[in-house]
Amino acid sequence: MQWDDEYYMQQALNQAQMAFQNNEVPIGAIIVLENKIIAKAHNQVEQFHDPTAHAEIIAITSACNYLGAKYLPEAKLYVTIEPCLMCAGAIYWSKVQEVIYGGSDIKNGYSKHTGNTSPFHPKTRIKKGIMDEACIKLMQDFFRSKR
Amino acid sequence: MQWDDEYYMQQALNQAQMAFQNNEVPIGAIIVLENKIIAKAHNQVEQFHDPTAHAEIIAITSACNYLGAKYLPEAKLYVTIEPCLMCAGAIYWSKVQEVIYGGSDIKNGYSKHTGNTSPFHPKTRIKKGIMDEACIKLMQDFFRSKR
Repeated sequence: MQWDDEYYMQQALNQAQMAFQNNEVPIGAIIVLENKIIAKAHNQVEQFHDPTAHAEIIAITSACNYLGAKYLPEAKLYVTIEPCLMCAGAIYWSKVQEVIYGGSDIKNGYSKHTGNTSPFHPKTRIKKGIMDEACIKLMQDFFRSKR
Repeated sequence: MQWDDEYYMQQALNQAQMAFQNNEVPIGAIIVLENKIIAKAHNQVEQFHDPTAHAEIIAITSACNYLGAKYLPEAKLYVTIEPCLMCAGAIYWSKVQEVIYGGSDIKNGYSKHTGNTSPFHPKTRIKKGIMDEACIKLMQDFFRSKR
């Protein structure tokens, strides 16, 4: 069965909500291959004391481990918030076919640094704004709860 | 005892040589805190089938795990080759005090994307060119052996 982008973004949002419950910045990611979710992850920086434990990094590592491959050229990565520079770099190396993200991130999103040049593999497509309001609201609720 | 940059870069180069022997792109990194090496790592992308398994990422994860802390504001990271965009992003999040790298990387170095703006934390200092000839020669030897 073919699901739409909103369906998969909702799965990423469920991951983000798990992060929220664990007192982590609420960002979630999933990786889809041939309509099957092969990796789910959420931010675990606090839990692991690891600044590299972002949802996208964990999802890419997990998907590659599952496939036994270092590239994901036929996979789609859904992430609730615009990837940071580190995660954009990881996406470049993974060669994923498509990145679909929810809300933009003016402060830490990759586009702040890369401007009009793309940091991704030339074949990687980018789609943004899928369920962005729900994705951003979760972030706002989290940071509001921290004040 | 206080060692100099060349001493620590040689340790990073030793890691890069281990990568070479394992048929990995020969890049090595170490992290130093108060003149003590707290993490050593080399590229393990092929071994783990993981495009995120760069020397710097593994070294940061390892150092943070050792300290039980998600920031490394008093640590120095030595890496044989200019970090890529992913690793520059990881360095940003880790807030390391200083990054010392050997050879520049025109093709995959972070500065290709970020131009004149720094992707690092404002307090992070950057030093480059330490033992750059030896660091670059190892890369050249590796890619020559692949042709």
